[in-house]
Amino acid sequence: MRPKIYLFGDSITEMSFDEGGWGASLVKHFNRTADLVLRGYSGYNTRWALKVLEKVFPATEKSESESPLAVTVFFGANDASLADRYSAFQHVPLEEFKHNLHSIVAFLKGRWPTTEVILISPPPIDEPSRLLYPFAENKLGLPERTNEAAGNYAKACLAVAAECGVSAIDLWTRMQQIPGWQTACLSDGLHLTKTGNKIVFEEVIEALKKKGLSLETLPVDLPQIHDVDPNDPLKSFEGI
Amino acid sequence: MRPKIYLFGDSITEMSFDEGGWGASLVKHFNRTADLVLRGYSGYNTRWALKVLEKVFPATEKSESESPLAVTVFFGANDASLADRYSAFQHVPLEEFKHNLHSIVAFLKGRWPTTEVILISPPPIDEPSRLLYPFAENKLGLPERTNEAAGNYAKACLAVAAECGVSAIDLWTRMQQIPGWQTACLSDGLHLTKTGNKIVFEEVIEALKKKGLSLETLPVDLPQIHDVDPNDPLKSFEGI
Repeated sequence: MRPKIYLFGDSITEMSFDEGGWGASLVKHFNRTADLVLRGYSGYNTRWALKVLEKVFPATEKSESESPLAVTVFFGANDASLADRYSAFQHVPLEEFKHNLHSIVAFLKGRWPTTEVILISPPPIDEPSRLLYPFAENKLGLPERTNEAAGNYAKACLAVAAECGVSAIDLWTRMQQIPGWQTACLSDGLHLTKTGNKIVFEEVIEALKKKGLSLETLPVDLPQIHDVDPNDPLKSFEGI
Repeated sequence: MRPKIYLFGDSITEMSFDEGGWGASLVKHFNRTADLVLRGYSGYNTRWALKVLEKVFPATEKSESESPLAVTVFFGANDASLADRYSAFQHVPLEEFKHNLHSIVAFLKGRWPTTEVILISPPPIDEPSRLLYPFAENKLGLPERTNEAAGNYAKACLAVAAECGVSAIDLWTRMQQIPGWQTACLSDGLHLTKTGNKIVFEEVIEALKKKGLSLETLPVDLPQIHDVDPNDPLKSFEGI
Protein backbone atom coordinates (compact mmCIF):
# COMPACT_ATOMS: atom_id res chain seq x y z
CA MET A 1 0.00 0.00 0.00
CA ARG A 2 1.11 3.54 0.59
CA PRO A 3 4.69 4.08 1.66
CA LYS A 4 5.40 6.00 4.84
CA ILE A 5 7.16 9.26 5.60
CA TYR A 6 8.15 9.59 9.27
CA LEU A 7 8.38 12.97 10.97
CA PHE A 8 10.81 12.52 13.86
CA GLY A 9 11.71 15.42 16.09
CA ASP A 10 10.85 17.63 19.04
CA SER A 11 7.92 19.96 19.73
CA ILE A 12 8.28 21.67 16.34
CA THR A 13 7.42 18.28 14.87
CA GLU A 14 4.89 17.34 17.57
CA MET A 15 2.98 20.59 16.91
CA SER A 16 3.05 20.17 13.13
CA PHE A 17 -0.63 19.23 13.02
CA ASP A 18 -1.79 22.47 14.60
CA GLU A 19 -3.84 24.60 12.20
CA GLY A 20 -1.67 25.36 9.18
CA GLY A 21 1.03 23.00 10.47
CA TRP A 22 3.68 21.57 8.18
CA GLY A 23 2.81 17.97 9.06
CA ALA A 24 -0.88 18.38 8.22
CA SER A 25 0.11 20.17 5.01
CA LEU A 26 2.30 17.20 4.05
CA VAL A 27 -0.62 14.79 4.61
CA LYS A 28 -2.78 16.96 2.36
CA HIS A 29 -0.03 17.21 -0.26
CA PHE A 30 0.79 13.49 -0.33
CA ASN A 31 -2.84 12.44 -0.05
CA ARG A 32 -3.40 9.13 -1.90
CA THR A 33 0.37 8.63 -2.33
CA ALA A 34 2.03 8.38 1.11
CA ASP A 35 1.20 8.08 4.80
CA LEU A 36 2.74 10.61 7.14
CA VAL A 37 3.64 9.22 10.57
CA LEU A 38 4.04 11.74 13.38
CA ARG A 39 6.81 11.00 15.85
CA GLY A 40 7.33 14.35 17.53
CA TYR A 41 8.41 14.45 21.18
CA SER A 42 8.19 17.86 22.84
CA GLY A 43 11.28 18.92 24.74
CA TYR A 44 13.46 16.09 23.46
CA ASN A 45 17.07 16.62 22.49
CA THR A 46 19.26 14.22 20.49
CA ARG A 47 20.53 12.57 23.70
CA TRP A 48 17.03 11.53 24.67
CA ALA A 49 16.15 10.75 21.04
CA LEU A 50 18.97 8.21 20.93
CA LYS A 51 17.56 6.52 24.03
CA VAL A 52 14.18 5.99 22.38
CA LEU A 53 15.18 5.24 18.77
CA GLU A 54 14.41 1.53 19.02
CA LYS A 55 11.01 2.31 20.48
CA VAL A 56 10.17 4.97 17.91
CA PHE A 57 11.25 2.75 15.02
CA PRO A 58 10.64 -0.79 16.30
CA ALA A 59 12.23 -3.65 14.41
CA THR A 60 9.71 -5.98 12.81
CA GLU A 61 10.14 -9.02 10.62
CA LYS A 62 8.80 -6.91 7.83
CA SER A 63 10.94 -3.87 8.50
CA GLU A 64 12.94 -4.37 5.32
CA SER A 65 9.94 -4.61 3.02
CA GLU A 66 8.38 -1.68 4.84
CA SER A 67 11.18 0.80 4.24
CA PRO A 68 9.71 4.25 4.60
CA LEU A 69 10.17 6.68 1.73
CA ALA A 70 11.76 9.21 4.02
CA VAL A 71 12.37 10.27 7.60
CA THR A 72 12.72 13.90 8.64
CA VAL A 73 15.02 14.30 11.65
CA PHE A 74 14.38 17.66 13.22
CA PHE A 75 16.32 18.23 16.45
CA GLY A 76 18.67 20.84 17.84
CA ALA A 77 16.33 23.48 19.21
CA ASN A 78 16.52 21.84 22.65
CA ASP A 79 20.14 20.72 22.41
CA ALA A 80 20.99 24.39 21.81
CA SER A 81 19.45 25.49 25.11
CA LEU A 82 22.21 27.30 26.99
CA ALA A 83 24.01 25.30 29.69
CA ASP A 84 23.73 28.06 32.27
CA ARG A 85 20.09 29.05 31.88
CA TYR A 86 16.81 27.55 33.07
CA SER A 87 16.56 25.03 30.19
CA ALA A 88 20.03 23.64 30.97
CA PHE A 89 18.59 20.16 31.56
CA GLN A 90 17.82 19.99 27.82
CA HIS A 91 21.25 21.23 26.75
CA VAL A 92 23.53 18.91 24.79
CA PRO A 93 27.09 20.03 24.02
CA LEU A 94 27.73 20.77 20.35
CA GLU A 95 30.16 17.90 19.78
CA GLU A 96 27.80 15.41 21.42
CA PHE A 97 24.94 16.81 19.30
CA LYS A 98 26.93 16.07 16.16
CA HIS A 99 27.80 12.61 17.41
CA ASN A 100 24.18 11.90 18.32
CA LEU A 101 22.89 13.06 14.92
CA HIS A 102 25.46 10.79 13.27
CA SER A 103 24.17 7.91 15.36
CA ILE A 104 20.54 8.64 14.45
CA VAL A 105 21.36 8.75 10.73
CA ALA A 106 23.43 5.55 11.03
CA PHE A 107 20.56 3.80 12.80
CA LEU A 108 18.03 4.82 10.12
CA LYS A 109 20.30 4.05 7.16
CA GLY A 110 21.34 0.78 8.78
CA ARG A 111 17.77 -0.33 9.05
CA TRP A 112 16.56 1.11 5.76
CA PRO A 113 19.41 1.77 3.33
CA THR A 114 17.13 3.16 0.64
CA THR A 115 15.17 5.54 2.88
CA GLU A 116 15.85 9.24 2.36
CA VAL A 117 16.92 10.87 5.61
CA ILE A 118 16.40 14.62 5.78
CA LEU A 119 18.08 16.52 8.60
CA ILE A 120 16.31 19.76 9.45
CA SER A 121 18.29 22.36 11.33
CA PRO A 122 16.80 24.20 14.31
CA PRO A 123 15.04 27.45 13.42
CA PRO A 124 16.50 30.81 14.38
CA ILE A 125 15.70 32.18 17.84
CA ASP A 126 14.11 35.53 18.61
CA GLU A 127 15.57 36.31 22.02
CA PRO A 128 13.18 39.14 23.02
CA SER A 129 10.24 36.81 22.40
CA ARG A 130 11.86 34.10 24.50
CA LEU A 131 11.82 36.53 27.42
CA LEU A 132 8.12 37.17 26.84
CA TYR A 133 7.22 33.46 26.68
CA PRO A 134 9.44 31.61 29.18
CA PHE A 135 8.75 27.91 29.73
CA ALA A 136 9.73 28.14 33.42
CA GLU A 137 10.63 30.68 36.04
CA ASN A 138 13.42 32.80 34.56
CA LYS A 139 15.30 34.13 37.58
CA LEU A 140 18.24 35.40 35.53
CA GLY A 141 16.04 37.42 33.20
CA LEU A 142 18.15 36.22 30.28
CA PRO A 143 16.88 34.17 27.29
CA GLU A 144 17.40 30.42 27.73
CA ARG A 145 18.23 30.13 24.03
CA THR A 146 20.13 32.51 21.74
CA ASN A 147 20.12 32.85 17.98
CA GLU A 148 23.89 32.51 17.87
CA ALA A 149 23.82 29.18 19.70
CA ALA A 150 20.98 27.91 17.48
CA GLY A 151 23.10 28.92 14.48
CA ASN A 152 26.02 26.81 15.71
CA TYR A 153 23.75 23.77 16.05
CA ALA A 154 22.29 24.47 12.63
CA LYS A 155 25.78 24.52 11.09
CA ALA A 156 26.63 21.30 12.91
CA CYS A 157 23.45 19.73 11.54
CA LEU A 158 24.43 20.67 7.97
CA ALA A 159 27.93 19.33 8.53
CA VAL A 160 26.58 15.97 9.72
CA ALA A 161 24.27 15.75 6.72
CA ALA A 162 27.21 16.40 4.38
CA GLU A 163 29.39 13.84 6.19
CA CYS A 164 26.62 11.22 6.02
CA GLY A 165 25.57 12.05 2.47
CA VAL A 166 21.96 12.78 3.37
CA SER A 167 19.71 15.78 2.67
CA ALA A 168 19.60 18.82 4.89
CA ILE A 169 17.35 21.84 5.30
CA ASP A 170 19.06 24.92 6.68
CA LEU A 171 16.03 26.35 8.39
CA TRP A 172 18.10 28.73 10.51
CA THR A 173 19.39 30.55 7.42
CA ARG A 174 16.23 30.15 5.33
CA MET A 175 13.94 31.75 7.91
CA GLN A 176 16.23 34.71 8.50
CA GLN A 177 15.78 35.61 4.82
CA ILE A 178 12.16 36.55 5.64
CA PRO A 179 11.72 40.25 6.57
CA GLY A 180 10.59 40.41 10.19
CA TRP A 181 11.28 36.68 10.58
CA GLN A 182 11.34 37.15 14.36
CA THR A 183 7.57 37.35 14.53
CA ALA A 184 6.62 36.42 10.95
CA CYS A 185 8.03 32.90 11.30
CA LEU A 186 8.08 32.40 15.07
CA SER A 187 5.18 32.59 17.52
CA ASP A 188 7.21 32.65 20.74
CA GLY A 189 10.73 33.12 19.45
CA LEU A 190 11.11 29.35 18.95
CA HIS A 191 7.95 27.65 17.67
CA LEU A 192 6.43 28.27 14.25
CA THR A 193 3.69 30.55 12.97
CA LYS A 194 1.67 29.57 9.90
CA THR A 195 4.31 31.32 7.77
CA GLY A 196 7.05 29.40 9.54
CA ASN A 197 5.14 26.16 9.05
CA LYS A 198 4.69 26.95 5.35
CA ILE A 199 8.44 27.36 4.95
CA VAL A 200 9.16 23.99 6.55
CA PHE A 201 6.48 22.36 4.40
CA GLU A 202 7.90 23.84 1.20
CA GLU A 203 11.46 22.95 2.10
CA VAL A 204 10.55 19.34 2.88
CA ILE A 205 8.63 19.04 -0.40
CA GLU A 206 11.66 20.45 -2.23
CA ALA A 207 14.14 18.16 -0.46
CA LEU A 208 12.01 15.12 -1.32
CA LYS A 209 11.63 16.29 -4.92
CA LYS A 210 15.40 16.49 -5.31
CA LYS A 211 15.48 12.80 -4.40
CA GLY A 212 12.82 11.95 -6.95
CA LEU A 213 9.97 11.72 -4.45
CA SER A 214 7.06 13.84 -5.62
CA LEU A 215 3.47 13.65 -6.80
CA GLU A 216 4.87 13.23 -10.31
CA THR A 217 6.70 10.02 -9.41
CA LEU A 218 4.69 8.37 -6.62
CA PRO A 219 1.86 6.00 -7.56
CA VAL A 220 -1.66 7.04 -6.59
CA ASP A 221 -3.63 4.72 -4.29
CA LEU A 222 -6.68 3.43 -6.21
CA PRO A 223 -8.55 5.01 -9.14
CA GLN A 224 -9.16 8.74 -8.95
CA ILE A 225 -12.61 10.10 -9.62
CA HIS A 226 -11.51 11.91 -12.77
CA ASP A 227 -10.27 8.60 -14.17
CA VAL A 228 -13.59 6.84 -13.56
CA ASP A 229 -15.68 6.50 -16.73
CA PRO A 230 -19.14 7.91 -15.92
CA ASN A 231 -20.63 5.48 -18.45
CA ASP A 232 -19.01 2.42 -16.88
CA PRO A 233 -17.70 3.29 -13.42
CA LEU A 234 -17.07 -0.27 -12.25
CA LYS A 235 -14.64 -0.86 -15.11
CA SER A 236 -12.08 1.22 -13.19
CA PHE A 237 -12.28 -1.22 -10.31
CA GLU A 238 -11.79 -4.43 -12.28
CA GLY A 239 -8.71 -6.41 -11.31
CA ILE A 240 -7.35 -3.95 -8.81
CA MET B 1 3.62 1.13 19.51
CA ARG B 2 0.75 3.48 18.88
CA PRO B 3 -2.54 1.95 17.83
CA LYS B 4 -4.19 3.16 14.64
CA ILE B 5 -7.44 4.92 13.85
CA TYR B 6 -8.45 4.66 10.20
CA LEU B 7 -10.50 7.35 8.48
CA PHE B 8 -12.28 5.62 5.57
CA GLY B 9 -14.60 7.56 3.35
CA ASP B 10 -15.08 9.87 0.39
CA SER B 11 -13.92 13.42 -0.33
CA ILE B 12 -15.14 14.67 3.05
CA THR B 13 -12.59 12.30 4.54
CA GLU B 14 -9.95 12.89 1.85
CA MET B 15 -10.12 16.65 2.48
CA SER B 16 -9.97 16.27 6.26
CA PHE B 17 -6.36 17.50 6.37
CA ASP B 18 -7.17 20.84 4.78
CA GLU B 19 -6.62 23.76 7.15
CA GLY B 20 -8.85 23.22 10.18
CA GLY B 21 -9.81 19.77 8.91
CA TRP B 22 -11.25 17.13 11.22
CA GLY B 23 -8.56 14.58 10.34
CA ALA B 24 -5.70 16.95 11.19
CA SER B 25 -7.51 17.92 14.39
CA LEU B 26 -7.72 14.25 15.35
CA VAL B 27 -3.98 13.82 14.81
CA LYS B 28 -3.34 16.83 17.03
CA HIS B 29 -5.79 15.56 19.66
CA PHE B 30 -4.44 11.98 19.74
CA ASN B 31 -0.82 13.09 19.48
CA ARG B 32 1.45 10.64 21.34
CA THR B 33 -1.43 8.16 21.77
CA ALA B 34 -2.68 7.02 18.33
CA ASP B 35 -1.82 7.21 14.65
CA LEU B 36 -4.49 8.47 12.28
CA VAL B 37 -4.48 6.80 8.88
CA LEU B 38 -6.18 8.68 6.06
CA ARG B 39 -8.08 6.53 3.60
CA GLY B 40 -10.34 9.06 1.90
CA TYR B 41 -11.31 8.54 -1.74
CA SER B 42 -12.98 11.49 -3.42
CA GLY B 43 -16.13 10.70 -5.32
CA TYR B 44 -16.42 7.13 -4.01
CA ASN B 45 -19.74 5.61 -3.06
CA THR B 46 -20.27 2.41 -1.06
CA ARG B 47 -20.43 0.32 -4.25
CA TRP B 48 -16.92 1.37 -5.21
CA ALA B 49 -15.76 1.22 -1.58
CA LEU B 50 -16.74 -2.46 -1.46
CA LYS B 51 -14.63 -3.12 -4.55
CA VAL B 52 -11.52 -1.71 -2.91
CA LEU B 53 -11.95 -2.87 0.70
CA GLU B 54 -9.26 -5.56 0.48
CA LYS B 55 -6.84 -3.03 -0.98
CA VAL B 56 -7.61 -0.36 1.58
CA PHE B 57 -7.29 -2.80 4.48
CA PRO B 58 -4.85 -5.43 3.23
CA ALA B 59 -4.62 -8.68 5.15
CA THR B 60 -1.25 -9.26 6.74
CA GLU B 61 0.04 -12.04 8.96
CA LYS B 62 0.02 -9.50 11.73
CA SER B 63 -3.43 -8.16 11.05
CA GLU B 64 -4.81 -9.61 14.25
CA SER B 65 -2.17 -8.14 16.54
CA GLU B 66 -2.47 -4.88 14.69
CA SER B 67 -6.18 -4.34 15.26
CA PRO B 68 -6.85 -0.65 14.89
CA LEU B 69 -8.58 1.13 17.73
CA ALA B 70 -11.28 2.37 15.42
CA VAL B 71 -12.36 2.92 11.85
CA THR B 72 -14.63 5.77 10.79
CA VAL B 73 -16.78 4.82 7.79
CA PHE B 74 -18.08 7.99 6.20
CA PHE B 75 -20.00 7.38 2.97
CA GLY B 76 -23.38 8.28 1.56
CA ALA B 77 -22.87 11.77 0.18
CA ASN B 78 -22.13 10.29 -3.24
CA ASP B 79 -24.55 7.37 -2.99
CA ALA B 80 -27.27 9.98 -2.43
CA SER B 81 -26.58 11.73 -5.75
CA LEU B 82 -29.85 11.73 -7.61
CA ALA B 83 -30.25 9.07 -10.29
CA ASP B 84 -31.54 11.53 -12.89
CA ARG B 85 -29.02 14.35 -12.50
CA TYR B 86 -25.43 14.88 -13.70
CA SER B 87 -23.87 12.91 -10.82
CA ALA B 88 -26.02 9.86 -11.55
CA PHE B 89 -22.92 7.71 -12.15
CA GLN B 90 -22.19 8.01 -8.41
CA HIS B 91 -25.75 7.17 -7.33
CA VAL B 92 -26.40 3.99 -5.38
CA PRO B 93 -30.01 2.99 -4.60
CA LEU B 94 -30.95 3.27 -0.94
CA GLU B 95 -31.42 -0.45 -0.35
CA GLU B 96 -28.08 -1.25 -1.97
CA PHE B 97 -26.45 1.49 0.12
CA LYS B 98 -27.72 -0.21 3.28
CA HIS B 99 -26.56 -3.59 2.05
CA ASN B 100 -23.12 -2.20 1.14
CA LEU B 101 -22.69 -0.52 4.52
CA HIS B 102 -23.60 -3.81 6.19
CA SER B 103 -20.94 -5.54 4.11
CA ILE B 104 -18.31 -2.95 5.01
CA VAL B 105 -19.06 -3.29 8.72
CA ALA B 106 -19.04 -7.09 8.46
CA PHE B 107 -15.68 -6.99 6.69
CA LEU B 108 -14.12 -4.75 9.36
CA LYS B 109 -15.60 -6.61 12.34
CA GLY B 110 -14.67 -9.93 10.72
CA ARG B 111 -11.06 -8.92 10.47
CA TRP B 112 -10.84 -7.02 13.74
CA PRO B 113 -13.63 -8.03 16.17
CA THR B 114 -12.46 -5.60 18.87
CA THR B 115 -12.14 -2.55 16.60
CA GLU B 116 -14.71 0.17 17.11
CA VAL B 117 -16.50 0.94 13.85
CA ILE B 118 -18.13 4.37 13.66
CA LEU B 119 -20.56 5.03 10.84
CA ILE B 120 -20.84 8.71 9.96
CA SER B 121 -23.92 9.80 8.07
CA PRO B 122 -23.68 12.14 5.08
CA PRO B 123 -23.98 15.83 5.96
CA PRO B 124 -27.04 17.85 4.97
CA ILE B 125 -27.09 19.41 1.52
CA ASP B 126 -27.60 23.08 0.72
CA GLU B 127 -29.22 22.94 -2.68
CA PRO B 128 -28.79 26.62 -3.70
CA SER B 129 -25.04 26.26 -3.08
CA ARG B 130 -24.90 23.10 -5.15
CA LEU B 131 -26.21 25.15 -8.09
CA LEU B 132 -23.46 27.71 -7.52
CA TYR B 133 -20.68 25.11 -7.34
CA PRO B 134 -21.51 22.33 -9.82
CA PHE B 135 -18.91 19.61 -10.36
CA ALA B 136 -19.83 19.24 -14.04
CA GLU B 137 -21.97 20.87 -16.69
CA ASN B 138 -25.45 21.12 -15.20
CA LYS B 139 -27.74 21.17 -18.22
CA LEU B 140 -30.91 20.67 -16.20
CA GLY B 141 -30.17 23.57 -13.88
CA LEU B 142 -31.30 21.42 -10.95
CA PRO B 143 -29.16 20.40 -7.95
CA GLU B 144 -27.51 16.98 -8.36
CA ARG B 145 -28.06 16.31 -4.66
CA THR B 146 -30.96 17.25 -2.38
CA ASN B 147 -31.16 17.56 1.36
CA GLU B 148 -34.14 15.22 1.47
CA ALA B 149 -32.25 12.47 -0.33
CA ALA B 150 -29.20 12.95 1.89
CA GLY B 151 -31.53 12.65 4.89
CA ASN B 152 -32.82 9.31 3.67
CA TYR B 153 -29.26 7.99 3.34
CA ALA B 154 -28.43 9.39 6.77
CA LYS B 155 -31.38 7.53 8.30
CA ALA B 156 -30.33 4.36 6.51
CA CYS B 157 -26.82 4.77 7.88
CA LEU B 158 -28.15 5.04 11.44
CA ALA B 159 -30.34 2.01 10.88
CA VAL B 160 -27.40 -0.07 9.71
CA ALA B 161 -25.33 1.02 12.72
CA ALA B 162 -28.15 -0.04 15.05
CA GLU B 163 -28.57 -3.36 13.24
CA CYS B 164 -24.83 -4.06 13.45
CA GLY B 165 -24.41 -2.77 16.99
CA VAL B 166 -21.78 -0.20 16.07
CA SER B 167 -21.54 3.53 16.77
CA ALA B 168 -23.10 6.14 14.52
CA ILE B 169 -22.87 9.89 14.10
CA ASP B 170 -25.99 11.54 12.71
CA LEU B 171 -24.21 14.39 10.98
CA TRP B 172 -27.24 15.25 8.87
CA THR B 173 -29.32 16.09 11.94
CA ARG B 174 -26.46 17.48 14.04
CA MET B 175 -25.42 20.05 11.45
CA GLN B 176 -28.95 21.28 10.85
CA GLN B 177 -29.08 22.31 14.52
CA ILE B 178 -26.55 25.06 13.69
CA PRO B 179 -28.20 28.39 12.75
CA GLY B 180 -27.33 29.14 9.13
CA TRP B 181 -25.87 25.62 8.74
CA GLN B 182 -26.20 25.98 4.96
CA THR B 183 -23.13 28.19 4.80
CA ALA B 184 -21.84 27.95 8.38
CA CYS B 185 -21.10 24.24 8.05
CA LEU B 186 -20.87 23.76 4.29
CA SER B 187 -18.52 25.50 1.84
CA ASP B 188 -20.25 24.44 -1.39
CA GLY B 189 -23.46 22.92 -0.10
CA LEU B 190 -21.72 19.56 0.41
CA HIS B 191 -18.13 19.85 1.71
CA LEU B 192 -17.22 21.20 5.12
CA THR B 193 -16.18 24.61 6.38
CA LYS B 194 -13.95 24.93 9.45
CA THR B 195 -17.11 24.95 11.57
CA GLY B 196 -18.36 21.84 9.82
CA ASN B 197 -15.00 20.17 10.33
CA LYS B 198 -15.06 21.08 14.01
CA ILE B 199 -18.43 19.39 14.42
CA VAL B 200 -17.19 16.17 12.83
CA PHE B 201 -14.04 16.27 14.99
CA GLU B 202 -16.05 16.75 18.19
CA GLU B 203 -18.56 14.06 17.28
CA VAL B 204 -15.81 11.53 16.53
CA ILE B 205 -14.04 12.34 19.82
CA GLU B 206 -17.35 11.87 21.63
CA ALA B 207 -18.17 8.60 19.88
CA LEU B 208 -14.72 7.22 20.75
CA LYS B 209 -15.04 8.42 24.33
CA LYS B 210 -18.31 6.53 24.72
CA LYS B 211 -16.37 3.40 23.84
CA GLY B 212 -13.68 4.15 26.39
CA LEU B 213 -11.17 5.50 23.89
CA SER B 214 -9.89 8.87 25.05
CA LEU B 215 -6.78 10.67 26.21
CA GLU B 216 -7.72 9.59 29.73
CA THR B 217 -7.50 5.90 28.86
CA LEU B 218 -4.91 5.59 26.07
CA PRO B 219 -1.25 5.15 27.03
CA VAL B 220 1.13 7.93 26.04
CA ASP B 221 4.04 7.08 23.75
CA LEU B 222 7.31 7.67 25.67
CA PRO B 223 8.02 10.02 28.60
CA GLN B 224 6.51 13.48 28.38
CA ILE B 225 8.66 16.53 29.04
CA HIS B 226 6.74 17.43 32.18
CA ASP B 227 7.51 13.98 33.60
CA VAL B 228 11.24 14.32 32.99
CA ASP B 229 13.18 15.21 36.16
CA PRO B 230 15.33 18.26 35.33
CA ASN B 231 17.89 17.06 37.88
CA ASP B 232 18.19 13.61 36.33
CA PRO B 233 16.61 13.59 32.86
CA LEU B 234 18.04 10.26 31.72
CA LYS B 235 16.32 8.47 34.58
CA SER B 236 13.06 8.79 32.65
CA PHE B 237 14.55 6.84 29.77
CA GLU B 238 15.90 3.89 31.77
CA GLY B 239 14.42 0.56 30.83
CA ILE B 240 11.92 1.87 28.32
